[in-house]
Order: sequence, then structure tokens, then C-alpha cells
Amino acid sequence: MYKINENYLKLPGSYLFATTGRKIREFAEANPDKKVISLGIGDVTLPLAPVVIDTLHSAVDEMGKAETFKGYAPDLGYEFLRQAIADNDYKARGADISIDEIFISDGAKSDSGNIGDIFDRDNKIAVCDPVYPVYVDTNAMAGRTGVYLEEQQKWSNVVYMPCTAENGFAPEIPEEEPDIIYLCFPNNPTGSTIKKKELQAWVDHALKTGAVIIYDAAYEAYISEEDVPHTIYECQGAKACAIELKSFSKNAGFTGTRLGYAVVPKELKCNGVSLNSLWARRHGTKFNGAPYIIQKAGAAVYTPEGREQTMNQVNYYMENARIIREGLREAGYTVSGGVNAPYIWLQTPDKMTSWEFFDHLLEKANVAGTPGSGFGPSGEGYFRLTAFGSYENTLEAVERIRKM
Amino acid sequence: MYKINENYLKLPGSYLFATTGRKIREFAEANPDKKVISLGIGDVTLPLAPVVIDTLHSAVDEMGKAETFKGYAPDLGYEFLRQAIADNDYKARGADISIDEIFISDGAKSDSGNIGDIFDRDNKIAVCDPVYPVYVDTNAMAGRTGVYLEEQQKWSNVVYMPCTAENGFAPEIPEEEPDIIYLCFPNNPTGSTIKKKELQAWVDHALKTGAVIIYDAAYEAYISEEDVPHTIYECQGAKACAIELKSFSKNAGFTGTRLGYAVVPKELKCNGVSLNSLWARRHGTKFNGAPYIIQKAGAAVYTPEGREQTMNQVNYYMENARIIREGLREAGYTVSGGVNAPYIWLQTPDKMTSWEFFDHLLEKANVAGTPGSGFGPSGEGYFRLTAFGSYENTLEAVERIRKM
Repeated sequence: MYKINENYLKLPGSYLFATTGRKIREFAEANPDKKVISLGIGDVTLPLAPVVIDTLHSAVDEMGKAETFKGYAPDLGYEFLRQAIADNDYKARGADISIDEIFISDGAKSDSGNIGDIFDRDNKIAVCDPVYPVYVDTNAMAGRTGVYLEEQQKWSNVVYMPCTAENGFAPEIPEEEPDIIYLCFPNNPTGSTIKKKELQAWVDHALKTGAVIIYDAAYEAYISEEDVPHTIYECQGAKACAIELKSFSKNAGFTGTRLGYAVVPKELKCNGVSLNSLWARRHGTKFNGAPYIIQKAGAAVYTPEGREQTMNQVNYYMENARIIREGLREAGYTVSGGVNAPYIWLQTPDKMTSWEFFDHLLEKANVAGTPGSGFGPSGEGYFRLTAFGSYENTLEAVERIRKM
Repeated sequence: MYKINENYLKLPGSYLFATTGRKIREFAEANPDKKVISLGIGDVTLPLAPVVIDTLHSAVDEMGKAETFKGYAPDLGYEFLRQAIADNDYKARGADISIDEIFISDGAKSDSGNIGDIFDRDNKIAVCDPVYPVYVDTNAMAGRTGVYLEEQQKWSNVVYMPCTAENGFAPEIPEEEPDIIYLCFPNNPTGSTIKKKELQAWVDHALKTGAVIIYDAAYEAYISEEDVPHTIYECQGAKACAIELKSFSKNAGFTGTRLGYAVVPKELKCNGVSLNSLWARRHGTKFNGAPYIIQKAGAAVYTPEGREQTMNQVNYYMENARIIREGLREAGYTVSGGVNAPYIWLQTPDKMTSWEFFDHLLEKANVAGTPGSGFGPSGEGYFRLTAFGSYENTLEAVERIRKM
């Protein structure tokens, strides 16, 4: 008799956004006259940039002619895209990443889940708290996280690094020595980030203790302040201890178009074994590449028009972020984030729990957000609003909250 | 110090097609005057069908307008595609599969690798020998296959089911009782298949012994004979013991466009635990859907024009298969396959090993194929040719082999 992976049975309840989605649906059905504005899930709303659309059309035409048709892609992804990434995302930032250290994927969610494959089950992970649920859930599926302690809402074998108002939402280096450290800056869900000097301290710590850092830089395009690292490879020694994950979802609106990449430097070795070769093997065996037309679209993002057009989209969302941040602050809320990230993190008023505030906001203002506690126990008492809505909806949502 | 997944280090050498690719490249470089025809890797050559191209263009236009732009897709995939699959691939075949048993993916290679995630490490797998390398390699990565025995070219903890001329290239039910049985019909690499009654025997065996069947039906569109099952769910009881994987790569030329799906029936349970829920959890946590425009293109394959146009492509390749099969038979080769599959499986002449024949064919006829031994020890003495080349190249290749 075959046996299932019992680790799946240890996973608590349903996915956060399934629950918020259900609650919003139920409210909308019970109140058909009310128009609910969602500043909840981190999904973009602006259409793809014109140059991306044009490039998709011409790539589609290529697929329609025998002479230009493309079958299986090269294992690591097309060189035209990897070269554009190496030049723009790394060389231009002073980081020397070669094209055979870049692996094109269908998105950072897949990569952040799949990267665990190349590590032993016997590794202790550390995560920020609150945190993007995928890191923890995928490690739970792999059997690395111990048992789930219902009351504490924590896994027994995970190092949680609280990010709260007390430490400016920046994790502190833990006393325990975890093996795999997940960092995401600018951060989802808090919208905060750290300076280069602080990230260098993490790199130094990883090198000293023999840890590997999984660095999720999905929100890099939203960085507006000086001295905030755009890639972990701006830090000295990072190539020997860090894997970086990037996405086209938030900088170019590819949430429904699917493209991302992982950087696994050749210097990154565990007892002499190159993680670059392990990931290459995993990539070549369990994946067959992102579609040609999508890889072409990704390369268009790096053209001068692509950079301008996608930057305009980022600016549009960041104007929304400013409206939410300032509007809520004026209304008396304690607010952070929204400067280097499209997320605003607010403290719930009147000692409400995150879920109480979710219901309150939905009922009184017909605005949906995401309860902070859904991202981890230290998110309790916090609430996430996203800047990915339309300008008009964002203005109206803030107006409604102010009047609440 | 973090630890890597040591199972990766047990994997033998490099991927089969990396080696054939290198050998072909080296030959071409040393013989610039010779035109090498590749009937090796199973990659299609015809451009995407006109209706697929038109649909891609209109879906791209949707992504360029705010009103029709699509962000994150539904977890299981768009209903328009899952409904088309349920109606055409199942209901029309008398198999009752509901749309929430269908999970859209980026291809059958990903699915056949990832499906292992929901099973315990402690399961014994059975595979046909020869076999598509991904099944074994991904199980090796998960630590299920024991150690690799270099001399026998086998893993110590895998049940190999030889498929040779002696048994008509149809695996026999093994004496051992494996937990997870991989079956692929029509078969890659042998091009053979089995009748419905024979597949029913596998289903009955799985039900009796508590095994689960991973059924790879990637080549279903090539079935030309009566009484060959198009889906395992034509067999009674299959919904309680089988997962089916399908691909758009071979029926519609999506090798570089990436789309597939897995069927995990709700009846499939292990001690009361639904595998459908486990896979839904895996799918929702480690994957973010195939691109909207590709899912639209997939649905176009099921329209009347799409069915006609893609069937024409299949017929084109099957005419190539006929040319290879009959041409080689006339030249004195012992040949099988090529009737219900785009693969021709031939016995190497003069007791040559598979790799000797590879070199021989490349040097004497400048034709590249794939050594049977690369697919497993029982593939030794066999050789695979694919029908995915152009008609003209296929004709010329056969002519060259006949003159050899």
C-alpha cells in the first residue's frame, strides 16, 4: 500500500487568502448594494505595458511560422533574457553575476517553494514573523518544521524572527543558529526594508555560521530611498552564502503572465558541492522552461521603453501607497511601509485583533485588507493594505476609512 | 551549517539528451560540410496552429487593457479550460471527470516530477524499462530509489519492468508489489501501447495491492488503433487508484509554449485522505498557474478548428512515422512503434550497442537518434527515432539510412 506525505496533514487550516476571499464573498452576497473595494491580495491591476504587449504579439507571430517557431527552451532559459538580467539587475548595480548563474522560471512563488528540494530535510529554517506564508508552508510539506503548535500559531522547529514596531520591523539576528534563513526586502507583508549595512551584517552572519540565505527581492522595483540594497549581491561575500529570487509580477504586472528567476552563484558551495549544479539538475529534470513568448516579454521589460513604461506603473502604485499612508496617518492610524514597497502596514486601533479589524473595516467601510496575524503570530494587531488597486478606488477607500 | 539533499549526488552522469546533443555538436563542428538531420529529441517542428495563434493574439490584447487584464489565475486553472478538458478528453470518452479534479500546469514534465511531493519517501516505485528518465530521476532526488548500481545501470530500490521484443514491449505485472507504478501509453520511448483489457488488468492489480498508478498519457493524440484506451479512466475503478498526466506539447506543439494538466480524482484516497486535496494544497502553495494567454491558447485547441488543425499536425507527424517505419523495415531493420505514437523503436543491427549505433548512424548517414540504453538497461540494443522532423528531412534521413 502506498503512503502519502504525512507532513501535508500537519498544515493548519486553509490558505490565508482563501479565508479572506470567502469572507469578502459572503459579505458582498449579503450586501448587494455595497461596493466592496479590495486592498487585500497583492495582485496588480494595471494592464501590461505597451512594449510588452507589442513584444508578445511579435513573439506569437514567430510561433506561427515554421522558420521562427520555438520548441523546448534552453534549460536555464533564453540567453537574451538572462543577459538582459545580468546587465540590468546586476552589472548596473555593481554585482557581478554571470548568465549561467541565472535560472529563468515561471515565478518567484514556484522558486521559493521549489528551492527547498536541493536541501536536506534536516535543516532548521529561520523566517521573519510576519512572513509570506509560502516559505513556511513549503518547508512544512518537506518535513522540516516539526509540529504545528496551535495555541502559539508556530511550528516547533522554526526560528521566528519577530518584526514589530519595537524593532522597526527589521528582524534581529537570532541567538539560535538556523541553517536556512529566508529574508524578503522590501518586505511582504510589512512594507519595510533594511539598509545595505544591515543586510551586510546578515551576510557576514551567514558566512560565519555556515547558513544559506534565501533572499526574496520580488519588490525591489519599489525601492525609493538611497542606501537600500537592490540585490543581496551588493553585499560583500553574498555570492558564497545567498540565493536570490526575483519576479516580474510586481515590477511589470506579470502576476497572470508568470515569469521569474533565481540566482544561484557558482561560489555558493556546501562542503565543495556547488549549489548551482544542484539547482541546474533540479531545473533541468523537473521543469521545462517558461514559454518562449513570455521570456521575450520579460526581455522587453529591460528595453528603454520597457523600463520607462514599467517604472510609470510602479510610480502609479506608489502614489496609491502615499495616499493610503498619509490618509491613514491623518486619520490617526499608526502606519509604516509604503515608501519602498507597495504595502502599508498599520496597527489596528482600539486593541482590535487583526481579524476583528478585518471584519470592522469590511462592515463599516466596505474595504477589504489582510489581517496581519495571517502572516504569523507577530502580525497580530496589524493589518496590511496594498497599493495595487486603481487610483480612484484607493482614494475612495481611504476616504471611507477616514469617515469610519 | 546547512546541508544539501545528498540524494542529488547519487544521480549518475548527465542527462541523456545533454550527451547526445554534445556528440552531435562535436560531429557537426568537425564536419561542417555534412548536414546532420536530427530524429533525436522529441521536440516538435510545426508552428502553432492558426487558431492557437489567433487566440494568443486576442488574449495578449486582453492583457493590454485594464478592463480585460488578468492577474493571478484561479488556483486550479481557468474554468473555461478545465471545462473544455472535462468535456473533450473525458466525457466524450465515457469517463466522468469533474472540473475540480483537473489541475492546469505548465506541462507534464513538471507534473511528473512534482507529483512525488505528495507521497512519502518510503514508497517503492515501479517503472517500465526503458523509460522516460524524469520518473526515475525525480524519485532518486526524493530519496526513494536506493543506491545506483553502476554496473547494472539500475537503482537498488526500483522495480524495473522490462519492455522488450520478447513481451511485445508491454510491461508485465511484477511479482514484487510496488507502491507507485509509472505507466506511459502510448509509450515513450518504445512507441508501443497496450489494449484496454490489458490496462484494466493494471488497474485491477493496483486496486488489489493498494498501489497508485501515475499514468502519463502525453501521446494520447497519436492513438490510431481501435480498443487502445485514450485515458486510464476508461477502465473500471481507475478513479480510485490512478492519477493521469496530460500535455499539450505533442498534440498541439506546445513544447515551447508550456501547458499540461494532471487529473487527481476525488475517489483516490489513501487511508481516507484525499489525494485531490493534497495535490490542491501543493498546487496552490508551490505554483501560481500557467499564464492566462497560454490557458486561452490551450482552450482553442478544443474548438472545432483547433481540433481539425492540430489533428492535421498529428497526421503530418504520423506520415513521417510511417515513412520511417516502412523505410527501415524494407531496409531490413526490425522495427516497432510508430503506429499509435510518434516514436519508432528499432533493434540495432549486427549486435551493435545502442551507443555504437548512435555513432555509426551519425557518421555514416549523418542522422541523429537516441540510444535506447539511455532510457534504461533493457533499452540496450535498441534505438529511438522520432517522427517530429519535417517531411522532407524525414524522407532524406530514411533514404540515407537505406543507403548506409
